[in-house]
Amino acid sequence: MLNERMLACGKKSSVIREIFEYGKKRKNEIGWDKVFDFSLGNPSVPCPQCVSDELTRLIRELPPEILHGYTSAPGDINVRQSIADYINRTHGVKESADNIFLTVGAAASLTITLNALVNEGDNVIVFAPFFPEYRVFAEKAGAELRVVECTRGDFQPDLDKLERAIDKKTKAVIINSPNNPTGVIISDKTVKRLCQVLKDKSSQLGTEIFLISDEPYRELVYTESKPIFITSCYANSIVCYSFSKSLSLPGERIGYILVGSECRDVRDVYYAICGSARCLGYVCAPALFQYLIPSVLGKTSDIEVYRKNKDILYSALTEYGYECASPDGAFYLFVKALEDDAISFCERAKKYELLLVPSNDFGIDGYVRISYCVSREQILASLDSFKKLYEEYKK
Amino acid sequence: MLNERMLACGKKSSVIREIFEYGKKRKNEIGWDKVFDFSLGNPSVPCPQCVSDELTRLIRELPPEILHGYTSAPGDINVRQSIADYINRTHGVKESADNIFLTVGAAASLTITLNALVNEGDNVIVFAPFFPEYRVFAEKAGAELRVVECTRGDFQPDLDKLERAIDKKTKAVIINSPNNPTGVIISDKTVKRLCQVLKDKSSQLGTEIFLISDEPYRELVYTESKPIFITSCYANSIVCYSFSKSLSLPGERIGYILVGSECRDVRDVYYAICGSARCLGYVCAPALFQYLIPSVLGKTSDIEVYRKNKDILYSALTEYGYECASPDGAFYLFVKALEDDAISFCERAKKYELLLVPSNDFGIDGYVRISYCVSREQILASLDSFKKLYEEYKK
Repeated sequence: MLNERMLACGKKSSVIREIFEYGKKRKNEIGWDKVFDFSLGNPSVPCPQCVSDELTRLIRELPPEILHGYTSAPGDINVRQSIADYINRTHGVKESADNIFLTVGAAASLTITLNALVNEGDNVIVFAPFFPEYRVFAEKAGAELRVVECTRGDFQPDLDKLERAIDKKTKAVIINSPNNPTGVIISDKTVKRLCQVLKDKSSQLGTEIFLISDEPYRELVYTESKPIFITSCYANSIVCYSFSKSLSLPGERIGYILVGSECRDVRDVYYAICGSARCLGYVCAPALFQYLIPSVLGKTSDIEVYRKNKDILYSALTEYGYECASPDGAFYLFVKALEDDAISFCERAKKYELLLVPSNDFGIDGYVRISYCVSREQILASLDSFKKLYEEYKK
Repeated sequence: MLNERMLACGKKSSVIREIFEYGKKRKNEIGWDKVFDFSLGNPSVPCPQCVSDELTRLIRELPPEILHGYTSAPGDINVRQSIADYINRTHGVKESADNIFLTVGAAASLTITLNALVNEGDNVIVFAPFFPEYRVFAEKAGAELRVVECTRGDFQPDLDKLERAIDKKTKAVIINSPNNPTGVIISDKTVKRLCQVLKDKSSQLGTEIFLISDEPYRELVYTESKPIFITSCYANSIVCYSFSKSLSLPGERIGYILVGSECRDVRDVYYAICGSARCLGYVCAPALFQYLIPSVLGKTSDIEVYRKNKDILYSALTEYGYECASPDGAFYLFVKALEDDAISFCERAKKYELLLVPSNDFGIDGYVRISYCVSREQILASLDSFKKLYEEYKK
């Protein structure tokens, strides 16, 4: 009677959500400070004060019928211009407000883009480990999801495997840097080589392959080297951005799609995105949060808090003996499980009240994701449990 | 290379939007007070002061990491409970917060619901004249849109025609009362008879047929008789609600889906809605506007302004000789064109700087929609043009 795929998707709650629910229950049993829940990627640092100030100013000063009224479907043109100016200034590119489409966050950016590009039977390539919702979004858009593994240890896309995975039906490749779940930034060299693979393969196959960069963590970087801006090195580029994580506004749903100005048939790509958004029921991005954007471009929550959390946790875990991917950005550590089966490892970690996410849902086995966007107290109090867990395995 | 259907949908801007753009151009040519643009359904009355006050209070008093944080995908449970309580109190029904799913407005409510219900090849029935986006939403969900005409003059669903249109593949019927574009409320008697038709046909065919009520205009009613609440008279009912029009917040995108508690397999219907929202990229409704809801339930902008606009325009037009559907609610008048071809009529109206929307896009010919959510000055200044237009035809 119903759509069985939607029903199955709605019934199967995510593993992360299940762990989070277990954590709430367990906290009620033994106390909130006794359970170390590292499951959710929910920013723990409040938004910067300038966000609250600007929201209050907008509500006080703008006529409400303008402030809360419909904008055009792609978003207010002045807001889009401010984003284009910021991108061009920051990344030294020449992008246009006409190619920016404001969205209800990164998930919407991705679903709108995929539905605009994909014809039934196309495939979309992702690099494992990857954000599990990519599968949900791609399959709903009618694509087959093809998974190419990263090289283990440094978690860079394996380009030989990528080359073999591409065929005539490959419509897009998704990258995500800094990455959820590894925290790793794809090196400039690797991105450039990846773009070359896409150029070579598409010219050889006579197709167009889009490079989609999912960028909710772009501003959350703790190293010198920022992720390269993909429109600077590949023509058929689409950036899916969100303000959720960098400004700690995940519930407000505000982000954008940027179609690179060098895209083949760029106007048509943009029109297809407009059509896709319309068909999926996206009328416009929330107006109040659109008007917030010009004043907060380039700003972030206090990410030093995350950096410090990472430093404490990374130093301690590696000192105990854990193997951990290089934590360049986002707020995740990706740690090798102490046995082959990550699910079984996570079960044992629960004995020490450590709630970790097994890597299986991210497309590979043998690792766990630790979200360190939690309180400093939790980080410090959990260290002893991590130590004991390690010692149990090394006995 | 792209998805051709999305491209076509993005390229074809709506007729309403085209008229609006023409209006802007024309206003720049001859002056903003000389052009009478009745094309857009964009609330002209500001939101009530309590909305601004409550938004400001929430920003001042709630911890930002809560206020702007993720809520659960269906929305904050306390907010959903407040909606359920309000619905039960107002409409004398027994609905549950567990069956409410907060959305990014009515368009999202509809697309999520249709994608949850429809399997490829199903059909969805609407009554003409109807909101043109129903076609876009239904077809993207994989359904064939079947159009059943209303009876002319009173614009009530033609139930004999409905009966003949239903077959084994009919998954849902959409109603919209007060209606866009007619402003007409479907009478209680007609809704009850319609429900009986659905019951009889589904039991005869051995299927389940959902009744979807699209309710952005529920609170915008100027007569004694309010639209009946459909969960009180039909089991398989789904209400798609939006706060956009009643509170003048169309840009903020906040609404909800209510699955009637008597729905067959109600948990599964709800799960399918959760899955559909997830697959379409809807993570949660904007958090700040979720938390606004409990304080504004049942409140509206000053709808007396619309009532007065309607009274002035309706009296004048009918006095001049125009035929007009009974304007019960929303902010539209549906007026018989003075020739068979509504498009040609609208072209002639332009000579008098009257911008009206021909009914063709709403699925019938021979009428025009007049949106009276405009300034009082525009209503008054336009009357002479309407009079002259009528006189030109009657010469």
